[in-house]
This record gives sequence, structure tokens and C-alpha cells, in this order.
Amino acid sequence: MRTPERSVELTQVTEWEDGRVRSLQDSLAAEEPLEIRVGGRPLTVTMRTPGNDLELAAGFLLTEGIIESPAQIAGLRIKPPDNLLKTNVVEVELQDSDFDTADLQRNFFAASSCGVCGKASIDAIRIRGIRLPESGFRFDPEMLCRLPEALRSEQAVFSRTGGLHAAALFDGNGQLMALREDIGRHNAVDKIVGWALLEKKLPLSEHVMLVSGRGGFEIIQKVLAAGIPVLASVSAPSSLAVKLARELGLTLIGFLRGRRFVIYSGESRCVSAKTGSDSGS
Amino acid sequence: MRTPERSVELTQVTEWEDGRVRSLQDSLAAEEPLEIRVGGRPLTVTMRTPGNDLELAAGFLLTEGIIESPAQIAGLRIKPPDNLLKTNVVEVELQDSDFDTADLQRNFFAASSCGVCGKASIDAIRIRGIRLPESGFRFDPEMLCRLPEALRSEQAVFSRTGGLHAAALFDGNGQLMALREDIGRHNAVDKIVGWALLEKKLPLSEHVMLVSGRGGFEIIQKVLAAGIPVLASVSAPSSLAVKLARELGLTLIGFLRGRRFVIYSGESRCVSAKTGSDSGS
Repeated sequence: MRTPERSVELTQVTEWEDGRVRSLQDSLAAEEPLEIRVGGRPLTVTMRTPGNDLELAAGFLLTEGIIESPAQIAGLRIKPPDNLLKTNVVEVELQDSDFDTADLQRNFFAASSCGVCGKASIDAIRIRGIRLPESGFRFDPEMLCRLPEALRSEQAVFSRTGGLHAAALFDGNGQLMALREDIGRHNAVDKIVGWALLEKKLPLSEHVMLVSGRGGFEIIQKVLAAGIPVLASVSAPSSLAVKLARELGLTLIGFLRGRRFVIYSGESRCVSAKTGSDSGS
Repeated sequence: MRTPERSVELTQVTEWEDGRVRSLQDSLAAEEPLEIRVGGRPLTVTMRTPGNDLELAAGFLLTEGIIESPAQIAGLRIKPPDNLLKTNVVEVELQDSDFDTADLQRNFFAASSCGVCGKASIDAIRIRGIRLPESGFRFDPEMLCRLPEALRSEQAVFSRTGGLHAAALFDGNGQLMALREDIGRHNAVDKIVGWALLEKKLPLSEHVMLVSGRGGFEIIQKVLAAGIPVLASVSAPSSLAVKLARELGLTLIGFLRGRRFVIYSGESRCVSAKTGSDSGS
């Protein structure tokens, strides 16, 4: 009961461990957009893990100061599935008929740096500014294994505060080119990309980006916009991140720790990654 | 050079360790809003760690698909400080005079669930729906130390995917009332609050919220909106989170691990926390 079916997605991945390569099944945390409609009009879209969607909508309305008590909710339901949106829409009816959704939308006006939230409807979620990674770049898995240590040794603020995300850009030989830390993971990525833009180094078609935290949809979008062919993380990607990476040809690496990593997408860029369920044993 | 002055803030905190309480100085990762203006009009606000702000603005414009090359940037500067905003504004001029900021704003239309991003200007950042926590609630530090294990043992999806944030609500005796997991930390909190709202349990004035990740401004805002007096995290809070918690009387706990935690705000709710620089030795 605590693990609704849609909160986990299974997928086939490639594991590299100490030079041995094998194919295995992995569980991904599901990430899908949820559109919250009030009085028939789209109010917001948030990237969420499916499950408890009515609670999410009700909680959002309260914590964003739109309602103050449950009595203000006249109706709350999951929109019956249609071909396009499945069950990714919650419809809310509020008691107050004077409630002005258009005015509310204006209060929520404008963008977020995360690239997905900040959209009023699922239709508005689109991939902007994407550059498909150049296909020629290849990388050495031994080089990849050295990157987390290179990031840690340069991460100045984190060691003092324990509170920052980091993004680091490496060249094809594993040389650190830029490291940025920020309370927001997407900001750390934007700072790296902005540095490259202002230094006229774009596109970064022979480079690897390493991020300290989880890889979600918005990070993938930003990495692709900079033309970076390989994104690595010490942690897990989301289902949508994997989907997007596969669709657009990004090499996506997770759980990069010690002498092991998992390739979720674009394994052909890894020079020794020839998949086989027991090729390494 | 890698640690710009404003990226870290020092503050006095209270440490509880195995029953001993002492006051010490702690470093916080700085969190402040940055407003990005294009052609004189506010485009977006992002909560960021100060430093490399021009890079952040340039990177945001590229990764959000607004520009494609550095040649499109005619001007990029930090707005000279005034009384209100200090240096939290970056002004961008683009080459293309047809560039329509109003239209761009419409594309970025609407809210994000994180409550801060999703605003076009710093003026639009305000605390909505805040309930000041009731002051009567007190908690036992021994009870607090048991919560992370209670969360972990119930966290179903994370153990399979390694990719989810969790938020858990406990009553004053440390009894788990609700646990939600989500790819977005703010969504996990909204799901808990929505559950409480629909179950007519608000305000949660005798409860403790535990979150798995870092505590930033937007989490504090949501916890306050639910009237929860104590927020605990296994990780570090941001500078703005601490500021907001102190201003509004929330008890904010960080680094809750084993038999140790750090109290950043509202220590009077902790029954044995009488501060003294060496009271425990």
C-alpha cells in the first residue's frame, strides 16, 4: 500500500564494475508532471512522483496560501484518463465563486530556473533550446571513476556547510574545467553553462558534467541545452530523466561511486561497455 | 577565490549531543533571491547561493532556450546596489530589439510548487498562508533521535530506487502519522500537509515534520503554512531557512543523526536545551 505501482518504474541498464560490464534490471523513482486545475483552469504543473495526487493538490493549495481550511474545497478529483494526459490532472472546485483563477495565475507569474515547474499546463512543458549531443565523443570508464574525487577535493563551500549542490565540468581527459556550488542544483548547472557561454566554449560536445545530487528532468534539459554528451551523478536518476536521455541520445550515468557506475542511456560512448548479462564474469 | 564571501554565512547555534548541550558557531550555505531582468523587465527570480551571478543569468537564458549564443547578449551586469535589493539583481540587454519580455513572461507563466521560484520579481516573494506555530508545544530530545530510524524503516520506495525525498509527520510522542515520498522534496511536504488537511487534522500544532534532504526557504514556508512547530532534517538548512525560522518562531533542527542534532532556531521547545558554551562538559 505504501508503494503505489506508478511510483516505481523498472528499466534495463548497464552496470560497469571494475572493468566488468553486465546488463541488469533497475528500479527508477517515477517522475511525471501533475497539472492542478482550479475551476476548470490550469493553475500549475509540478513534476512529481505519482501517488497521493489529491493530497498533493490539497496540500499545494494550503501551503501556497490559496485556501486555509478543507471547507473551502467543494470538489477534488482526479480527471478521468484520456488519451493524452492519463491521470496526471487533478481538478479542484473551490467554494468561493468569486475566486479568480486568472488573477491567481498572475500572482504565480513567471519562471523558475528548474525549467519545468513554472508552467501552467502540461501543454506548456516542452523541451526548449535542445542541442543533440555530437555522437563522436567517447570516454574511458577509468577516467569517469576519478571524477567524484576530483569534485570533492575542490568543493570548498560544501565542506564548511554541508548544504550545497555541486556541478562540475570536465574535459574528455577528466580534467576539471569549472566547478560551481549552489543551494539549487539547477543553479549550479546554469552557472557552469553560463561560464562556458561567456567564455565562448559552447557547445561542450567533448565534455562530461558531474552533479552531486539526483538527476531529474530539468537537469537533463539544461545539460542538453549546453550540448554536453555525458551527464554523471553519484546518485539515482528519475524515470523521466532516463526517458528524455534515451530519446535525445544523452549518455546518462548514475551511482558513480568508487569503481562502479550504472549506465542508463547512451552506453556506446563508454569505450569498454559491451553489454552482456554475464560478459564480465 | 572559490569561496566568495557571500556564499557562506556564520551563525550561532545550539548543539545537542547525547544529552549534552552547547552553543557553537556554524557555517550556513547562503540562500538569497536573484532577480534576472531582461530589457529592464523582471523575467524570473531564483533562490540561489550568491556568487557567479552573471554566469547564472547567462546560463539560465541559454538552458531555458531564450538565447543560443553569447553574441545575443548586448549587456550583462549586476545592478548597482540600492537600499532594498543589494546586489540581488542582474540586468540583461539582448541584441534582438524585437525580443518581447512580456511574451516571454507569458511562456514562463504560472506557479511552481516550491513557492519561491515561479515569481517574476523579488517583490512578489512574500510569505503566504503562514500560521505562527503555537508556543505551548515542547519535545523530548530522546524522542527526536528516534525519528530518522522510524522514517527509514518505513521508506519503501527509496530503498528500491535511491531516488526519492521523504517527508514524515510525527506526533509529540514520536509516533509516525504519515510518510510520503516524492522526487520533489516540496511535493513530499505538500502530500503530508494535504493528507492532514483532508483528514481535518490541521493545524498540526503538536507535531514534528522530518524531511530527508536539505531545508530551504520553500520547505520552511510550507511547514509554517501547516502550523507545524518543529521541522527536523538529517541534513543542513540554508541561511534563509534559518532567518525565516527565527523570524516566525519555528523550531528548526539540522544534522539529526544518531544521538546528535543542531538547533538553529526555537530551542526553547526542546525540553533539555539550556544553552551554555560548556554546560555539558
